[in-house]
Amino acid sequence: MNSSTSVDIHQGRGRVGCNDLHSETVAGDHRELLETTKSLFAALLYWDSTVARPHIQSAPERELLCIFGTGDLGRSLGQRLLQTGYRVVYGSRRPHSCDPLPQGAQVMSHTEAAQLATVVIACVHREHYDFLEAAAPQLKGKVLVDVSNNSEKGLYPESNAEYLQSLLPEASVVKAFNTISAWSLQNGSSDAHRQVYLCGDSAEAKQAVRELATSLGLSVLDRGCLSAAREVEDFPLQLFPQWRLPLCLATGLTAFFFFYLLTRDVIYAYVEKDKDISFRIMVSLANKVFPIVSLIMLSLCYLPGVLAAFIQLYRGTKYRRFPDWLDRWMLCRKQLGLLALGLAFLHVLYTLLIPIRYYVRYKIAENVVSVIRENRTTVFDTTIAWRSDSYLSMGILGFALFVLLGITSLPSISNALSWREFSFVQSKLGHLTLFFCTLHTYLYGWDRFLRPSTYKWWTPPGYMLCLVVPSVVLVLKLLILLPCMDRSLGRIRQGWERRGPEGEGTKPLMA
Amino acid sequence: MNSSTSVDIHQGRGRVGCNDLHSETVAGDHRELLETTKSLFAALLYWDSTVARPHIQSAPERELLCIFGTGDLGRSLGQRLLQTGYRVVYGSRRPHSCDPLPQGAQVMSHTEAAQLATVVIACVHREHYDFLEAAAPQLKGKVLVDVSNNSEKGLYPESNAEYLQSLLPEASVVKAFNTISAWSLQNGSSDAHRQVYLCGDSAEAKQAVRELATSLGLSVLDRGCLSAAREVEDFPLQLFPQWRLPLCLATGLTAFFFFYLLTRDVIYAYVEKDKDISFRIMVSLANKVFPIVSLIMLSLCYLPGVLAAFIQLYRGTKYRRFPDWLDRWMLCRKQLGLLALGLAFLHVLYTLLIPIRYYVRYKIAENVVSVIRENRTTVFDTTIAWRSDSYLSMGILGFALFVLLGITSLPSISNALSWREFSFVQSKLGHLTLFFCTLHTYLYGWDRFLRPSTYKWWTPPGYMLCLVVPSVVLVLKLLILLPCMDRSLGRIRQGWERRGPEGEGTKPLMA
Amino acid sequence: MNSSTSVDIHQGRGRVGCNDLHSETVAGDHRELLETTKSLFAALLYWDSTVARPHIQSAPERELLCIFGTGDLGRSLGQRLLQTGYRVVYGSRRPHSCDPLPQGAQVMSHTEAAQLATVVIACVHREHYDFLEAAAPQLKGKVLVDVSNNSEKGLYPESNAEYLQSLLPEASVVKAFNTISAWSLQNGSSDAHRQVYLCGDSAEAKQAVRELATSLGLSVLDRGCLSAAREVEDFPLQLFPQWRLPLCLATGLTAFFFFYLLTRDVIYAYVEKDKDISFRIMVSLANKVFPIVSLIMLSLCYLPGVLAAFIQLYRGTKYRRFPDWLDRWMLCRKQLGLLALGLAFLHVLYTLLIPIRYYVRYKIAENVVSVIRENRTTVFDTTIAWRSDSYLSMGILGFALFVLLGITSLPSISNALSWREFSFVQSKLGHLTLFFCTLHTYLYGWDRFLRPSTYKWWTPPGYMLCLVVPSVVLVLKLLILLPCMDRSLGRIRQGWERRGPEGEGTKPLMA
Repeated sequence: MNSSTSVDIHQGRGRVGCNDLHSETVAGDHRELLETTKSLFAALLYWDSTVARPHIQSAPERELLCIFGTGDLGRSLGQRLLQTGYRVVYGSRRPHSCDPLPQGAQVMSHTEAAQLATVVIACVHREHYDFLEAAAPQLKGKVLVDVSNNSEKGLYPESNAEYLQSLLPEASVVKAFNTISAWSLQNGSSDAHRQVYLCGDSAEAKQAVRELATSLGLSVLDRGCLSAAREVEDFPLQLFPQWRLPLCLATGLTAFFFFYLLTRDVIYAYVEKDKDISFRIMVSLANKVFPIVSLIMLSLCYLPGVLAAFIQLYRGTKYRRFPDWLDRWMLCRKQLGLLALGLAFLHVLYTLLIPIRYYVRYKIAENVVSVIRENRTTVFDTTIAWRSDSYLSMGILGFALFVLLGITSLPSISNALSWREFSFVQSKLGHLTLFFCTLHTYLYGWDRFLRPSTYKWWTPPGYMLCLVVPSVVLVLKLLILLPCMDRSLGRIRQGWERRGPEGEGTKPLMA
Repeated sequence: MNSSTSVDIHQGRGRVGCNDLHSETVAGDHRELLETTKSLFAALLYWDSTVARPHIQSAPERELLCIFGTGDLGRSLGQRLLQTGYRVVYGSRRPHSCDPLPQGAQVMSHTEAAQLATVVIACVHREHYDFLEAAAPQLKGKVLVDVSNNSEKGLYPESNAEYLQSLLPEASVVKAFNTISAWSLQNGSSDAHRQVYLCGDSAEAKQAVRELATSLGLSVLDRGCLSAAREVEDFPLQLFPQWRLPLCLATGLTAFFFFYLLTRDVIYAYVEKDKDISFRIMVSLANKVFPIVSLIMLSLCYLPGVLAAFIQLYRGTKYRRFPDWLDRWMLCRKQLGLLALGLAFLHVLYTLLIPIRYYVRYKIAENVVSVIRENRTTVFDTTIAWRSDSYLSMGILGFALFVLLGITSLPSISNALSWREFSFVQSKLGHLTLFFCTLHTYLYGWDRFLRPSTYKWWTPPGYMLCLVVPSVVLVLKLLILLPCMDRSLGRIRQGWERRGPEGEGTKPLMA
Repeated sequence: MNSSTSVDIHQGRGRVGCNDLHSETVAGDHRELLETTKSLFAALLYWDSTVARPHIQSAPERELLCIFGTGDLGRSLGQRLLQTGYRVVYGSRRPHSCDPLPQGAQVMSHTEAAQLATVVIACVHREHYDFLEAAAPQLKGKVLVDVSNNSEKGLYPESNAEYLQSLLPEASVVKAFNTISAWSLQNGSSDAHRQVYLCGDSAEAKQAVRELATSLGLSVLDRGCLSAAREVEDFPLQLFPQWRLPLCLATGLTAFFFFYLLTRDVIYAYVEKDKDISFRIMVSLANKVFPIVSLIMLSLCYLPGVLAAFIQLYRGTKYRRFPDWLDRWMLCRKQLGLLALGLAFLHVLYTLLIPIRYYVRYKIAENVVSVIRENRTTVFDTTIAWRSDSYLSMGILGFALFVLLGITSLPSISNALSWREFSFVQSKLGHLTLFFCTLHTYLYGWDRFLRPSTYKWWTPPGYMLCLVVPSVVLVLKLLILLPCMDRSLGRIRQGWERRGPEGEGTKPLMA
């Protein structure tokens, strides 16, 4: 861009200079000198052309772009380019019989169109690349932007871009715009997907495309050489890759606890007491499964951090890589946490709806009736009041903090946070949340674990099972917080190593 | 920045070069030719230094900018520029009697200030453009940035920028920064509005301003020629244009159902049974109206998609434009959905508060009392338990999914999603949400539609009315999912056309 | 890249050019002139090639960068640079014994590495800067990027960057990348922290680093000269500076009202009625404290705006600065509002849980029982029904609007809004929210203020205290909305001043 201004001034200067010089060359008796100056003149002319041209074209308003293909993306891309002030010419196989194009754009054959522009955007399906080969000579030395995507992964041995490059070895192919949708280009709304991934082997070509994308108000991320094209082409096809593992885990746990509790509650009641309480599945059971899974997943999202700390303490250095499973685990902590939050949200809704349920209302009424009929007297137990109230409070506070965690993990928020702020929220508040939720569960259980009646068919109730992991995590975390542990861990994270010489090579670079 | 500075240097040099070169051309003989070549040397030397220098002079730190007008925006813009390292000089009508300016900035008259800088930012109200005409000669060939806004739309025949250009034809006017607020410039916080819309006829000028904005950490979106200025100037004045239609719809539906249910419930009870249950308006009625409207709007946000599919199937091509009403409808789907979510949220809150209501508590107590006094016995009905529980569960799951949809429609999230992920969430999960909510309503209705007592004054209850649209949408969607339909629709969306030759011209460019 | 590379090429060429040209100028006679022109010609040709080349050499792919230090950030930065296509060479004190580096990178001694690159990134702790001094000669005239951070604020008299510059006066030091974490560089995910703060004294150097960062897909914000380095270095250490004040306020208010209500409710009951209702602390008390503090903070976040308006009306101008306390207050309005929202959220959760509480269930049952035993008859009071229902509705609507406010204050949303839209939501909807919540509280109180029993120990209940501020704010706001006030305020905000001449100097620049 820099040059864009100096452009025509240069040119101007160039030409002026040339003219003057020309006039000189007429004067001047000395033939050699004449020759010299002539060649100097030539040099200047040549310079003028080489230096001047690239700059001119770098001016968006002036530059003419060629688009191959008049389909969705081709059209909307053209439209957007025209709006931004480029001149656009379409290359089509049937220039005269093709669909309505954005006004202001011309249509011609591939070869004609290619001749005019230095940047050619190929909005063509891979199946039709062969049409482009016809224009090979015109494309020689041109920047050829490949925007194609495949309908599914691994359809072809090599990426479309690399294939195109192999077809047109003399053009410099750049992969770009394939993550941008025609839709979001048309309604260039600020919340459209504006990240353009770029890769190609020629630096000039990439630079040209980067400037093109920037002037369209898109943000560019360079992914390196053309060999990265496969990756870039797979991006639009990916479907929540990082969510796979956490989702499987959540489904697995949910399924397990569902059947476990189904057996303990419904089936047990049916077999032993011959009572049909199957209706409980819809709410009561769900409201047991969800919180259990939620708590486990929340603790699973803080377990790796604690493990990592212990590994570092044991190794006495932070510079050895963690085992892969731990790395992978750490990378999906965010997803684990968000899924846990979702389940906690369900738990809250289910809980708040309890008093509306027909079953509950019936029970309460029945209870009151029985009290009167049997002329019983009920006494108010302060302990129970304390317990139930504090158990509810813990739940509320835990959930509120959990929601806060969820909010801060929104991209727009976490970007606004400094690294220290982010880790403060995610680590400190995170463990606090875990603590509240665990306490909430303990208070819920209270002294039930003493009563034998709890262990139907000698199985512990669900809430006990789900308390294992969180308790472990909290205990380990407490251990780490012990002064001695904390100090040495701190030193390790500062880059200190138990053995081996100290050089800045092994020094930490960020607190 | 580079260019904007290097401009006049080059120009300067250009002129110099031309002059001395020209002076030579008169001469003819040898000595003079020697002179010529020498001066040509000199010229080259000088030129050489100027080419080397731009990189130094291109320094933001060094460049001097001129700001006309010392008001809010003028000052905060100046302050920010000074922070970034520019030198700033203000042009004011009363250089000596104007308000405190950011320290480090000078103040002088318009003409003096304009002379110094190549980029002049006019932070002046349109009413005062005439003052600028005085500085016309100094502004000749300069970049003049117009940041002005009008207090309301269509106040003037042409945009401020175009008007300014007409006043100063020799300056190259660029419209920019008018969407940036003084406030957000001062506290340049990362969550301030950082999108700068740019338009102008000169490419160089725009380039200069783009670099200026970028170095201020703002993101630039080029809107093309100066004629786009009106649009850009209207932007800060717009008030949720895309929300108009959905909001009207929501209000209309709410009003209709409010009065409809008011008649059926309150007025009916008053007229027929002579009972005053007007107090129900506040909660019971609201809690009927909101979910009804919410469900209808949710279905309305998926109806156009289904219609579009059928139109494509009927036409056998995806390349003919949809009727305008459908296009407009499709463009406000997001808003429809979010409004529906808002109403659903209200519905949830109202529902969860039910058990706290005085009326409800009274009813329950009264009911129990009556049971005892009349010595009735109540029997527990498992079917009702099943029904009420599953009806609540459906509601909860539907709402949870709905919230998920809402979250993914946050700009920062949808940007992070690949196109496929986004459409998966919005389409698949969206229809699932619709299904849950519809089922929730059906279960709520249950067998009521059989009882004649439901049809007070021969009108159907609200929940029946609101079931029409969603049911239609779901049925149509199911039809589309039929293998045969699905296949041919898939082919059409791949670009296949029932008639007409196949060329890449009509090929799809994005799956 | 362009410039950063082309820089030294130009300079280099410049020097060459100057020298031979100079040597010529001594010569005078004809033959030499011939030589001159020839060499000039040669020079031009040479120059031509160098100027033509930059576009090739500017290739990120080709450029070689040097990184000092092989620790966390050094490695991940190198890895990312290699991905983007740069060539990377590490400078280490122990080139042969240092940790595994990203493949494709070379390692050598500092001096060797520094010689090769024009941009050197120092990923070294301040304690180890002295090692760099060894490479001083090689770093002469190079761009030296300092990414270091300190473990805590104010550890050293001057910023690391300035210290480094003082050690290596001949290198041009640029502070950058210190806000980027190694972690987010490795998993360059779109939601990583991508804001790079830049500062330095040399414009060229900064330009080079800016382009470097941009090509890594990071967004750059120029913070000016190297003296700004301290600020930039403090950024990663800061912990919610703007939240301090609001948080203190919230804690203070919460503490005060907690003890105030503890005395009025629990202690009072214990002393006067000798009843232990301490269990109420967990829920009942919390559910009184939170809404009270929430409402006060919400009103506190709209009070400064109203005050500002009155100050402007009194002064008759908008161009005089507000007192500092008001400025600071206005800057933390957002935080005040969000904290209030958090507390309101807690209030909602606590309220919705009421019917599940053991205490409440016991009371209700007991009440019913007593009704029957004492054979009382309860009558349904429509007024109470009206009151309780409308009090709940107000609460719901208030909370829903409050949530809406919270959502629109998300960075990603507020960025998408035009300034007018944003202020509409935050001001209009904000005051509406305040109105609903205040009304909600008034309806809650209803006629209680008449009963002497309310004033235990002659103290007013909490809800009365918390009504003071909101009521004041609303009354003042109403005053401002009076036509007369509104008109003159509008004129002032348009830039009109009661006294003093009118010039565009004092004109507003943004409606």
